[in-house]
Amino acid sequence: MQGVRASTLASGLAEMGCGGLVVFAESAADPDLAPFTGSVHLGESLLIVPAGGTPRLVYFTAMERDEAAATGLGLITPEELDLVRWRQEAPDPVDFLAGALTRALERAGLAPGRTALAGHGQVGVLHAVLSRLARTGWEWVPGNDLVLAVRKRKTGQEVAAIREAAAGTAEAFRTVARLLATAVPSEETGELQLGGTPLTVGRLRAEVAMALAARGLEQPRGNIIAPGDEGGVPHSAGTPERVVRLGEPLVVDIFPHGTLFADCTRTFCVGEPSEPLAAAYAAVREALERAYAAARPGVRGWDLQETVCQLFQERGYPTPISHPGTLTGYVHGLGHGVGFQLHEQPVFRKETGAEGVIAEGDVFTLEPGLYDPGAAGGGYGVRLEDLVWLGPDGLENLTPLPYDLDPRAW
Amino acid sequence: MQGVRASTLASGLAEMGCGGLVVFAESAADPDLAPFTGSVHLGESLLIVPAGGTPRLVYFTAMERDEAAATGLGLITPEELDLVRWRQEAPDPVDFLAGALTRALERAGLAPGRTALAGHGQVGVLHAVLSRLARTGWEWVPGNDLVLAVRKRKTGQEVAAIREAAAGTAEAFRTVARLLATAVPSEETGELQLGGTPLTVGRLRAEVAMALAARGLEQPRGNIIAPGDEGGVPHSAGTPERVVRLGEPLVVDIFPHGTLFADCTRTFCVGEPSEPLAAAYAAVREALERAYAAARPGVRGWDLQETVCQLFQERGYPTPISHPGTLTGYVHGLGHGVGFQLHEQPVFRKETGAEGVIAEGDVFTLEPGLYDPGAAGGGYGVRLEDLVWLGPDGLENLTPLPYDLDPRAW
Repeated sequence: MQGVRASTLASGLAEMGCGGLVVFAESAADPDLAPFTGSVHLGESLLIVPAGGTPRLVYFTAMERDEAAATGLGLITPEELDLVRWRQEAPDPVDFLAGALTRALERAGLAPGRTALAGHGQVGVLHAVLSRLARTGWEWVPGNDLVLAVRKRKTGQEVAAIREAAAGTAEAFRTVARLLATAVPSEETGELQLGGTPLTVGRLRAEVAMALAARGLEQPRGNIIAPGDEGGVPHSAGTPERVVRLGEPLVVDIFPHGTLFADCTRTFCVGEPSEPLAAAYAAVREALERAYAAARPGVRGWDLQETVCQLFQERGYPTPISHPGTLTGYVHGLGHGVGFQLHEQPVFRKETGAEGVIAEGDVFTLEPGLYDPGAAGGGYGVRLEDLVWLGPDGLENLTPLPYDLDPRAW
Repeated sequence: MQGVRASTLASGLAEMGCGGLVVFAESAADPDLAPFTGSVHLGESLLIVPAGGTPRLVYFTAMERDEAAATGLGLITPEELDLVRWRQEAPDPVDFLAGALTRALERAGLAPGRTALAGHGQVGVLHAVLSRLARTGWEWVPGNDLVLAVRKRKTGQEVAAIREAAAGTAEAFRTVARLLATAVPSEETGELQLGGTPLTVGRLRAEVAMALAARGLEQPRGNIIAPGDEGGVPHSAGTPERVVRLGEPLVVDIFPHGTLFADCTRTFCVGEPSEPLAAAYAAVREALERAYAAARPGVRGWDLQETVCQLFQERGYPTPISHPGTLTGYVHGLGHGVGFQLHEQPVFRKETGAEGVIAEGDVFTLEPGLYDPGAAGGGYGVRLEDLVWLGPDGLENLTPLPYDLDPRAW
């Protein structure tokens, strides 16, 4: 474990009065386990970290011994725990796991007492297992937030993985821009056509998926390709059958996963944007610049949110500060950390401790946007989102793409 | 909820002495929640099913009201639970969720008492929440296996979703066969080349990913494209840099996810197979036919395993029955249920109850294989896996593809 990460964990455990941390995972893709194991192919596993001691990884099948070894962690093997025999003698999943966990904790040198718990798993089985151990002196304390803090600052390898996902994301955006730039609007309806067939959201979505797949990226959380009024609701993913039209905005938000996540948004408009759309675009563009200028180590995410809210308010748009709960204008937060999950630390909420402070090593988004799904002359949404890394030399944009509405300018 | 599903749940809860079921989920893709909600885009959610009562779905943000309504379930809204206020007043995730859960259970008409728990989530937070409620009369019982039983028999919509994933899988196999059939072996090394560049596992993997992406399928569990001795270890995914060679087998196992999973394996060999490989292939082919002939409603998965083990033993191959723990010959189970997870019921293990019995409505694999990673003349693996549905008219192969080793015969 990296120095900073180990010390964040140690001080967190001390603060919580815990003798150690236990992380449950159904696979090494678990966002609470992966920061410790790196990118490996492991199924069900368990990490035990005694406070101030050596982390030990428990894996459950001998077939995974090479992958487990590749983590570089101290191992507790299925042979040591005699799992094959126990699986036969205790076929009930609760009996089996309670036994395996008890023996693993002992081997890892963790004694019953106050212990932090993180990771993810089957709610029913795990609650039963943990309750059983609680009867023999284990006091479990929620530790998911502790691991979020531990993984806030990304390692060089993690930044490289995010950079790779971001490069694939950029490639997908260029594919979308190319299709939009070469599409021809129908003179009667204004619907865009490509090779004589209507250019639908579904077609764009398929092209994005293929561009990402070619680079080994998938979209476990989907994506947003939302034209016109659909883009006016930030949550709307976009209806596949909908045809993209001349003069209407198209919000494209792509957040794929390789070994880690990336996240980027651009807004396109083929043909002349309406006046309200052009004005919103200009304001969002300026808000993004102000966010870039203000994002320094030690600044709080909420400070950045206030900065862009002030700008938007000056331009006459409602914001969550001026109009809590507003559904038009600026309606969301300015950004979020990105990595093992699509949303992690730093957070941009108001009431926060260290998790709300931007620090060196953080990877996060900056994503101002303006929305008016019911605008006269056509509902719209405009969002521009970059994924940035705060490195030793300052902020680096991991998604260096044009910001232009017009895809022909790309 | 479908009749059969409701009655499986009711009798299961009665057997367990439970007054209801609670399912936790981080999204509606949770395999314990999706059988109740169908395919919708929901984030954190909660399902409460009082025994003999109406299921109620809890969602956590007003933005998801349309998706929640699309499930057709009775809803408990974030407004009813006053979640916005509580999130401010109880920012700690345990306080917040314990409060929301308590109020939701009350609204759903479920009184404190013995209650089954299923779904998946953050181990630390959920254990704390559930322990707190346990102090006010809630007795939690593991219910993950109950939901596995409930979702064993697939609905028409679910079979259609699996069929779609299987069709995409078949398309990916045809892509692989085409590439192998058109590749040219180097005369010196026997390495296959395509357009002058070596045909690597990585190249095949990228083509498979793109073929699947074009049909909206992803591979959250990866895939296996394993040549030669790598295919001799069923767990080995295949090294990306490895070049496919003349006369060596290539095990291709693809198990993508659309809204549900599919699963299929074929083994290829460009050029003349070695004698051991040809013999193994013939035995596996015959084992698959026997499995098909024997798979009828009421038969146990383990019966099918015994059938193919007998055949393999007659041909001189070790099996898990003749040689427990063998790493050569036949080294695994004959199949597994497929659906919301890649591995679910029916199971093909020896000691089982109803979960081990094949019944109408089940979707499962039949996948005999033979392995010898250290065979003289070249390590090999051969596996043929079909995904089948036991419909009202008997067994239907959802992956109707050629079985030929030779890709030119495809």
